[in-house]
Amino acid sequence: MSVRINKRKIINDPVYGFINIPNDFIYDIIECPWFQRLRNIRQLGLTGLVYPGANHTRFQHALGALHLMSLALDTLKGKGVRISVEEEEAACLAILLHDIGHGPFSHALEKTIIEGVDHEDISLFLINRLNEVYGDKLALAIDILFGRYNRMFLHELISSQMDMDRLDYLRRDSFFTGVIEGLVSSDRIIRMLNVADDSLAVDEKGIYSIEKFLFARRLMYWQVYMHKAVVSAESMLVRLLNRARELAIDGKDVFATPALGFFLDTGLRKIDFAEDNPAAGLIAERFTSLDDSDILVSAKYWAGHGDKVLSNLAGRLVNRNLFAIELANAPFDEEKIAVLRKMVERDMGIDEAEARYFVYSGAVSNLPYSPEFHEIKILLKNGKADVISSVSDIFNHKFLSEKIIKYFLCYPKEYRQ
Amino acid sequence: MSVRINKRKIINDPVYGFINIPNDFIYDIIECPWFQRLRNIRQLGLTGLVYPGANHTRFQHALGALHLMSLALDTLKGKGVRISVEEEEAACLAILLHDIGHGPFSHALEKTIIEGVDHEDISLFLINRLNEVYGDKLALAIDILFGRYNRMFLHELISSQMDMDRLDYLRRDSFFTGVIEGLVSSDRIIRMLNVADDSLAVDEKGIYSIEKFLFARRLMYWQVYMHKAVVSAESMLVRLLNRARELAIDGKDVFATPALGFFLDTGLRKIDFAEDNPAAGLIAERFTSLDDSDILVSAKYWAGHGDKVLSNLAGRLVNRNLFAIELANAPFDEEKIAVLRKMVERDMGIDEAEARYFVYSGAVSNLPYSPEFHEIKILLKNGKADVISSVSDIFNHKFLSEKIIKYFLCYPKEYRQ
Amino acid sequence: MSVRINKRKIINDPVYGFINIPNDFIYDIIECPWFQRLRNIRQLGLTGLVYPGANHTRFQHALGALHLMSLALDTLKGKGVRISVEEEEAACLAILLHDIGHGPFSHALEKTIIEGVDHEDISLFLINRLNEVYGDKLALAIDILFGRYNRMFLHELISSQMDMDRLDYLRRDSFFTGVIEGLVSSDRIIRMLNVADDSLAVDEKGIYSIEKFLFARRLMYWQVYMHKAVVSAESMLVRLLNRARELAIDGKDVFATPALGFFLDTGLRKIDFAEDNPAAGLIAERFTSLDDSDILVSAKYWAGHGDKVLSNLAGRLVNRNLFAIELANAPFDEEKIAVLRKMVERDMGIDEAEARYFVYSGAVSNLPYSPEFHEIKILLKNGKADVISSVSDIFNHKFLSEKIIKYFLCYPKEYRQ
Amino acid sequence: MSVRINKRKIINDPVYGFINIPNDFIYDIIECPWFQRLRNIRQLGLTGLVYPGANHTRFQHALGALHLMSLALDTLKGKGVRISVEEEEAACLAILLHDIGHGPFSHALEKTIIEGVDHEDISLFLINRLNEVYGDKLALAIDILFGRYNRMFLHELISSQMDMDRLDYLRRDSFFTGVIEGLVSSDRIIRMLNVADDSLAVDEKGIYSIEKFLFARRLMYWQVYMHKAVVSAESMLVRLLNRARELAIDGKDVFATPALGFFLDTGLRKIDFAEDNPAAGLIAERFTSLDDSDILVSAKYWAGHGDKVLSNLAGRLVNRNLFAIELANAPFDEEKIAVLRKMVERDMGIDEAEARYFVYSGAVSNLPYSPEFHEIKILLKNGKADVISSVSDIFNHKFLSEKIIKYFLCYPKEYRQ
Repeated sequence: MSVRINKRKIINDPVYGFINIPNDFIYDIIECPWFQRLRNIRQLGLTGLVYPGANHTRFQHALGALHLMSLALDTLKGKGVRISVEEEEAACLAILLHDIGHGPFSHALEKTIIEGVDHEDISLFLINRLNEVYGDKLALAIDILFGRYNRMFLHELISSQMDMDRLDYLRRDSFFTGVIEGLVSSDRIIRMLNVADDSLAVDEKGIYSIEKFLFARRLMYWQVYMHKAVVSAESMLVRLLNRARELAIDGKDVFATPALGFFLDTGLRKIDFAEDNPAAGLIAERFTSLDDSDILVSAKYWAGHGDKVLSNLAGRLVNRNLFAIELANAPFDEEKIAVLRKMVERDMGIDEAEARYFVYSGAVSNLPYSPEFHEIKILLKNGKADVISSVSDIFNHKFLSEKIIKYFLCYPKEYRQ
Repeated sequence: MSVRINKRKIINDPVYGFINIPNDFIYDIIECPWFQRLRNIRQLGLTGLVYPGANHTRFQHALGALHLMSLALDTLKGKGVRISVEEEEAACLAILLHDIGHGPFSHALEKTIIEGVDHEDISLFLINRLNEVYGDKLALAIDILFGRYNRMFLHELISSQMDMDRLDYLRRDSFFTGVIEGLVSSDRIIRMLNVADDSLAVDEKGIYSIEKFLFARRLMYWQVYMHKAVVSAESMLVRLLNRARELAIDGKDVFATPALGFFLDTGLRKIDFAEDNPAAGLIAERFTSLDDSDILVSAKYWAGHGDKVLSNLAGRLVNRNLFAIELANAPFDEEKIAVLRKMVERDMGIDEAEARYFVYSGAVSNLPYSPEFHEIKILLKNGKADVISSVSDIFNHKFLSEKIIKYFLCYPKEYRQ
Repeated sequence: MSVRINKRKIINDPVYGFINIPNDFIYDIIECPWFQRLRNIRQLGLTGLVYPGANHTRFQHALGALHLMSLALDTLKGKGVRISVEEEEAACLAILLHDIGHGPFSHALEKTIIEGVDHEDISLFLINRLNEVYGDKLALAIDILFGRYNRMFLHELISSQMDMDRLDYLRRDSFFTGVIEGLVSSDRIIRMLNVADDSLAVDEKGIYSIEKFLFARRLMYWQVYMHKAVVSAESMLVRLLNRARELAIDGKDVFATPALGFFLDTGLRKIDFAEDNPAAGLIAERFTSLDDSDILVSAKYWAGHGDKVLSNLAGRLVNRNLFAIELANAPFDEEKIAVLRKMVERDMGIDEAEARYFVYSGAVSNLPYSPEFHEIKILLKNGKADVISSVSDIFNHKFLSEKIIKYFLCYPKEYRQ
Repeated sequence: MSVRINKRKIINDPVYGFINIPNDFIYDIIECPWFQRLRNIRQLGLTGLVYPGANHTRFQHALGALHLMSLALDTLKGKGVRISVEEEEAACLAILLHDIGHGPFSHALEKTIIEGVDHEDISLFLINRLNEVYGDKLALAIDILFGRYNRMFLHELISSQMDMDRLDYLRRDSFFTGVIEGLVSSDRIIRMLNVADDSLAVDEKGIYSIEKFLFARRLMYWQVYMHKAVVSAESMLVRLLNRARELAIDGKDVFATPALGFFLDTGLRKIDFAEDNPAAGLIAERFTSLDDSDILVSAKYWAGHGDKVLSNLAGRLVNRNLFAIELANAPFDEEKIAVLRKMVERDMGIDEAEARYFVYSGAVSNLPYSPEFHEIKILLKNGKADVISSVSDIFNHKFLSEKIIKYFLCYPKEYRQ
């Protein structure tokens, strides 16, 4: 149910039922255009091509993470952890804004138009600007979000192996894809949260729920995030955007929506998002005017472009005629790749450099549980805390923490043997 | 789970779990670009502004309706109704394609750019063209869809008071909005289906489920489809598109995406979709290249246009700064409207005709159960069939079948008293 | 998850996920034997014979109602209603204990062994005794439960047209029977609660949810509570217990479990539950030692009894060989009944009085929305409260509030024509 | 919805929605008293003391497993596996009857009154007798159930690492306990089933679902089946029954319900269930007249018995005053046990042998994935089948297949330090 119109601050969410907006300032932030634009940025980019239900947006995810943060703070307070009203509001704002720097189809964009710029850099850049507008009312949220505040558990609720961000996206992605095996019991996990030595910890009796969470994450990686067709589609989008840039830089006439056109030839680099960039205001405005619709409209139009590479790639993507993809545990044979490229050169009448847009290999990796990064702590019944890798019998075997690299090879499916 | 890549024809759906694609031809139709474009057309248009989860697409709905059709046909065959393989395929194709003629934001589009053209006219137009391409293999589906086949229950499964279309959209819209009161037990209702005198009927013991279905429909009308903020947003989009057309016709420079630009100034009329229109092929290609992203991109750009009316309306819509809306059981007082318009004229420095874009009234109506239109039949235990309005005690009171008209008045919320 | 062992007061509930026990005293009450015995009393009696999932107990229901009470009190406090800590605890205790007076298979028991005694009389009787044990700590709860406390909305949360008792049992019965059309959105309804003039009220925007709630209640009546086979089974149990009593009073040897045997011949009358009954302590102990297992064990044994009527009835019930049942809107023809009885007399070799145990008629009635009893109030946006029958268009037609009587006729199914 | 009364063979199930009864003979088997009695035997025995929702019965489980069997057979037929109508019916009967030999509180009963008799022995015994009654119509079902039919996959659907029995009980137990992490996607797993070399196999793409299934099983073991309080309660019931037997054998007067009384002093041994036992008919009748209510009624009465041990144990169990329980990875120190027993002897005034009823240790073990027993086979994309332990990276680490033994120590909680 809407907020603005009804003057009540409850939002219907198919995942949790209802989400309460804790207070007016948080509500104002939700209403601001930079946040509202997240309504038009799908959380899972092109994954909808494989799982048709996966059209949920970063807007929904941010609200869901806010909801879990409220529950987590309530739980911790209920266990006697002292949290001030200011800390509570700041933690809520921090989780709400943690993804504000995402552009459309982030995975692809970060490899092309905004190459080398992490969405977290952009989040910091945008939140700093919001902070100016709102008279420094976001200062504590920024400190918590970027790990500069001394009560580390607040940061860990936003960014750690077991944070509200992951908890929401795993559950939400599972819900909307229909891959119910990925279902995470966020309610149960949150009730097990505690604080030990200023760090986030999990009560010992929650250990099975944590193992289940890590297991569900691994499953979602292979079943959804690294699904072959998704990897194929995203790699095609990367090449499509690079081709468009190449042509634009080369002075060719390449239509783009106004928002995309601004960046297409020049792109954006990390330095553009520096605080002291005199054009920072303009960059912020332009970046936040981009959303999924700019990419979709441009790609549709490119399908009729004179450049064979651009039109072919765009046409395939728009009509979901995705490249065939092979996965392997070792890099692909260069010779095999060369042979495929030769065939494409010959059949399409293009040169070797252009054929690289149609036949290419690469690598994807799961993001395993990383013992180096804010490892999950278990608060034992004896009052001591220990890391989960020492406590759980699953971790004796480390299978959840091994990084797995898969190599892929893509090519038009006409060449599938 | 994807189909094309995996060579298995099962699709994950968060509502039903899995959807089987019955055969290869049906799968080919799903893969064709005109159907794939439904991935980028949201089922509920701007409703996502009120219920953030409501981002499901017409693609998902069409697959869901196909799924229910398969279940319904299986049930009827299980009860001894003879249905040939050809009829089964044709009924599946008919339900799959029943909404192919929808453009983006249909409610708004049908009042502006394609004024006076029903999406069913366009569906017929497009399906006829597909039928040509596929060598008349859609002929029986077309007959069933448009009520020309002699076994009327097949048509009624697609279009009646109790069809698979409604059954899917009520359940799906309930699921994605999170308004669980609208939940319809599609499984139970389908198991109660039967055929009597060649008409679709419901076994007597299913009467409570049918009443519940009609009740849920009524609830979804008021809670979702006619939600005040949704009505406000859609009425704003109508006015935004009309203003853009007005300026374009007037020769002003109005950016539009290529797909939208083709239609913006001239629009499309019913006659354009005639079979014997020599430009029919072009019309079909252009119309099917339109999707939500064209409207969203254009609206974003219009927010910076020189025309005060266009930019103001666009800016409000993009940033979800919706008009205040009042509902009433009788038309609003003309004088009140005139006073509000005067204030807007004065404050914005615009004339009376322009002020009509900001202050306006209109009417919405629920679509009640219509006794005139394929009334739901109940197959009594004595073997006779009777219409539900004679059998159910709810209908003795007719509350579900009364048409209700609500009048609305919209204006910028700054003028709310 | 258990409480006692774990020392945490969270209980897993399949309906709501988790239920928190608010404090130690409430926990002690849950632990006391009189409350624990509710674990062995099924909420829906013999309904499990029709809906095999319906094995949930009065223990679960009482905890569920406690959970909803906590949510409701939180909501009201959030809207500014002042509720003291004492009132809060008392309201929770009152809802927890509201059904403590239920015996096994209440509907049948109240027509036989404890004829003329309402379970509410017994609840008061038992709670008063608990209150003595716990040093008057239940005094306020008793006042609230029995409507003697001046803040009437607290009582109405327990007992009114829209109380937490009904809200839980409708939702819970829908969940366990699998009749999902009866699903009530308890979360949404509770968020709409308010207080007006010291009475419970519902915010105007909740009106559709209330209508849906009343509709779901009506559906559950006909689909579950008054399901033909359930009515048949319960009427058979009534007759079985009456026959056993008749024989026992007559001095025949009739086995019964110790707990049941105590009551079988003498029964209990309202006067036995009087506070000043010198045997009150004994009555309380004996009554609270009865549960479903006493009836089930006794019935199993009676299936082998020498009395034809007793053994036949018991055998049918134990093996789910239920009587055929006919429903009608008017009383059944006495002649038809007489003819059936004659056949049974002849075939079983019993007399007319005994045949009445096999062929009988009676009446059931839904419990409609009763405008006389704490009618649901709607808190209008203008700040005034009005009863729902004046506000809702459904109630213009009164279909939800008409009492419906159905007459039934039962007989051995061998006589079905 | 009931079957008998309605003459339609659909049963409402809260887990799957609806369960179809495939044909009349299967329906007759469901209606027979030996099967109906499963309505009064809870699937999880005393687990309801910890998870109050866990009151589901073996009746529900058997129907659920039948439902999954139907789905599995349909899937296999859809993949081209030839299955005759007779095989299909027999497989359904076999899964329906696989648990018919369960008595009430099996875990406890098998350690006391029917010591040394496996419920599978009793199932065979009972099914053979049913087969006689039904003119050998169960012969093929018996062959399939006990692994004597040459098409081994049919047996494996009933009894293997990945059978319909486990699939139903894991999902059902997860549903009714509310431990949603144990949720198994039965639908997805069944769709992945296949047959290779006459053995049941899982399509390669189902490997994550299988891993998830094994993981969920492990979680349910520790969170539910081996929950400390459940282990404590069941161990108490074992001791209670043993004490009652001891007294009965000793000639003391010990009340028991008629059905339990028959066995209490003599017990039943494996030899009693031999086909050629001349009293086989009597044994079958008596055994099948036992259900949960016999144990519950007897225990209630024993709480008032003159024997201190019997009354104390019974009283604790009835009022859920469970023994404290400690878990450890090694056996408990004998001296610690002796000290505790001494205190109990002194405080209760009982001898050492009697104190063993109050202070005792034992061991429980999970039932891991056993590579020796019908290991799960994966049907690789290359057409070959291999066991999952060679294919899955989880099994490289074997964590799911290691048998874990936990030692426990129980004593009255008054002695908890």
